[in-house]
Amino acid sequence: MGLVKKPVKGMKDILPKEMQIRDYVINIIKETYAAFGFTSIETPCVEHIENLTSKQGGDNEKLIYKIMKRGEKLNLEAAQTENDLSDSGLRYDLTVPLVRFYSNNMNSLPSPFKALQIGSVWRADQPQRGRYRQFSQCDIDIFGEPSNLAEIELILATTTTLGKLGFEEFEIRINERRILKAMAAYSGFPEESYEKVFIILDKMDKIGFQGVEQELLESGFAKENVEKYLGLFCEMEKQENGLAFLAEKIGSYLEQEVYQNLQEIIESVSETKTAKFQVVFDPTLVRGMSYYTGTIFEISIPQFGASCGGGGRYDKMVGKFTGADTPACGFSIGFERIILLLMEQGFEIPSQKKKIAFLIEKGISGENLCKVIKEAQNTRASGEQVLVVRMNKNKKFQKEQLIQEGYTEFKEFYKNA
Amino acid sequence: MGLVKKPVKGMKDILPKEMQIRDYVINIIKETYAAFGFTSIETPCVEHIENLTSKQGGDNEKLIYKIMKRGEKLNLEAAQTENDLSDSGLRYDLTVPLVRFYSNNMNSLPSPFKALQIGSVWRADQPQRGRYRQFSQCDIDIFGEPSNLAEIELILATTTTLGKLGFEEFEIRINERRILKAMAAYSGFPEESYEKVFIILDKMDKIGFQGVEQELLESGFAKENVEKYLGLFCEMEKQENGLAFLAEKIGSYLEQEVYQNLQEIIESVSETKTAKFQVVFDPTLVRGMSYYTGTIFEISIPQFGASCGGGGRYDKMVGKFTGADTPACGFSIGFERIILLLMEQGFEIPSQKKKIAFLIEKGISGENLCKVIKEAQNTRASGEQVLVVRMNKNKKFQKEQLIQEGYTEFKEFYKNA
Repeated sequence: MGLVKKPVKGMKDILPKEMQIRDYVINIIKETYAAFGFTSIETPCVEHIENLTSKQGGDNEKLIYKIMKRGEKLNLEAAQTENDLSDSGLRYDLTVPLVRFYSNNMNSLPSPFKALQIGSVWRADQPQRGRYRQFSQCDIDIFGEPSNLAEIELILATTTTLGKLGFEEFEIRINERRILKAMAAYSGFPEESYEKVFIILDKMDKIGFQGVEQELLESGFAKENVEKYLGLFCEMEKQENGLAFLAEKIGSYLEQEVYQNLQEIIESVSETKTAKFQVVFDPTLVRGMSYYTGTIFEISIPQFGASCGGGGRYDKMVGKFTGADTPACGFSIGFERIILLLMEQGFEIPSQKKKIAFLIEKGISGENLCKVIKEAQNTRASGEQVLVVRMNKNKKFQKEQLIQEGYTEFKEFYKNA
Repeated sequence: MGLVKKPVKGMKDILPKEMQIRDYVINIIKETYAAFGFTSIETPCVEHIENLTSKQGGDNEKLIYKIMKRGEKLNLEAAQTENDLSDSGLRYDLTVPLVRFYSNNMNSLPSPFKALQIGSVWRADQPQRGRYRQFSQCDIDIFGEPSNLAEIELILATTTTLGKLGFEEFEIRINERRILKAMAAYSGFPEESYEKVFIILDKMDKIGFQGVEQELLESGFAKENVEKYLGLFCEMEKQENGLAFLAEKIGSYLEQEVYQNLQEIIESVSETKTAKFQVVFDPTLVRGMSYYTGTIFEISIPQFGASCGGGGRYDKMVGKFTGADTPACGFSIGFERIILLLMEQGFEIPSQKKKIAFLIEKGISGENLCKVIKEAQNTRASGEQVLVVRMNKNKKFQKEQLIQEGYTEFKEFYKNA
């Protein structure tokens, strides 16, 4: 069998230039989230197939890289279906493994527990520009905090990070699963079809208001309900405080506490934020994952059409592992999209160490080599980066290359000097 | 299907305490290797099955986690063997993917290319204490440097890192594949059985001198050859400079250049090292991987019986991908063993940021909550870490827990203050 030079389909090699930016962003992320009391944890990339196919992951469950059983457990002849051959798979997100982690280790963890997880995930999706089958996610989550202090801290930590990376004029769009439901109830949709309504509503930014109207009607919903529903969105848009208007308008359909809770998040974040952004109530925000139980939010960066991260409250997922529900709320920053944006902007990493190249003539060896290396060692000890490299025949070209790699100083060493 | 709380067999969840140490060690590694001109790169965790089973990986190839084909490519009915079901697998080391990476991207990379790669690898080995089926490796490699400048810089960079992590009095044991061969030739072993001889020699530290003798004889090697071979080791041990003695003793069996090359590495490293350690010639050092072509080396840390990292020169592997050989030399630091040692020693991370906990009474909300968060934000902006957390009923216990997590200052906020 011949050896293959290219990476496997849909995955990529990361070259030094991109890695420098990734490392820089990861350092900012770790430093900023640590300032908010988040601690790093790690889960294995390989997860039980049962956990990956438990319907927590929505469509991602169709994209799992499945790992074959090994040794005696692999029985090819008796295998009827794919599932008989696999007992584990690569994680498609960090949330399912995190909840397993929390359930497994809760007795050794502080309460509330504020976790930061950065790691690779895999989805056998159709590869697209800037979208790969292995990519990094970066999530913060808080377990055991029932109040909106969790949402406020998550949004502040994430936006502070974005601010430090130079992003501004972005938006945090926020909504509540319970508001989505109250609006659907007020409009007279039958409860069992709420999710179907939300899936259509979720397309608002793609197919527009009339597209949503048309699709709702085509799906067989009553004209009266659709008009009442979409009327709410129209009226809210005209208001300065759409959320307050909605709370009054739909009255008893929405618990006052839900409205106040969301209003408090918006106000607290607006008053204490350090980055330049707006938190806005967006009643059309749905977020795909069905595990959300309360607040949901998403980052919109103007330079980037699509969402650049999001999250929400999922108070019922820990209970699926432990039998006892635990409040949980998380925010995932769109790591790969941020890297892509920074790369496209020609981002330069601020204030690096001085990089010096020592060019040594080919024949230098023994004691003379020792002298050069000793000087390199001393220079490194004083905090600088030193590359010791053999001089090429075309020294000019070699230096040009080194300048491109960020070397700003050169020192040359000759055999007969 | 029920959800499973434990990680998959042989893999582990990494808790905050260990993660802090891992992050600290990774930062030291990245900073130190950068000072030597190494740049970070990343390869996908998933690799072509052809590359993983190309006999570069020795016994590790038996331990591969294989990934199932997907969609139409998976044909269960037509599958005769395991190999028909899999087109990729999880990498078992970082060297094979690195050589693929270099072969694929060499036109975009500087020459020589100095790579740092930190990443997870997987081996379906029998789990043991401190040994897991997913673990991190940390490799530096230099491509395109034929002279021993590569070995010298690799050893200096690795030992400087170990020194910065507080390790001292360790040893770098060094040998040469060509010396191993010359000794076998001098002793009269037939060339085709060299590898067999080396596999037995490799057991010296486990079964001792007499064990090696016995096993060589039992394997059918002539008594005369075995005695001549082992006699060399005995005589060398009595010498101050075993390497110089050997070079003279076996004379024409060993090219003078090979001896001088190794001698120069030992001398240059000894004279320019910054950490406290010895470089010693060890003629019994073999290293399992058959891809090595020249120098081989290993780290021995006294607190840790087994090897704590190693590497060597492998000038023929790039050629298997590209058809043209490229000088290559690498050093892998025993990342997981270092973490284990530091954990066991109760390692404390030096000079962290101040950690302050704001304990807020349960009822605080609205404007009062805003005030507390604003104060937290200001304190964070001045470089400190602030955890905002609800006060528990048992405040004393809560503070004790927080002290264990490293919080040294507390501030309490009450509703009616």
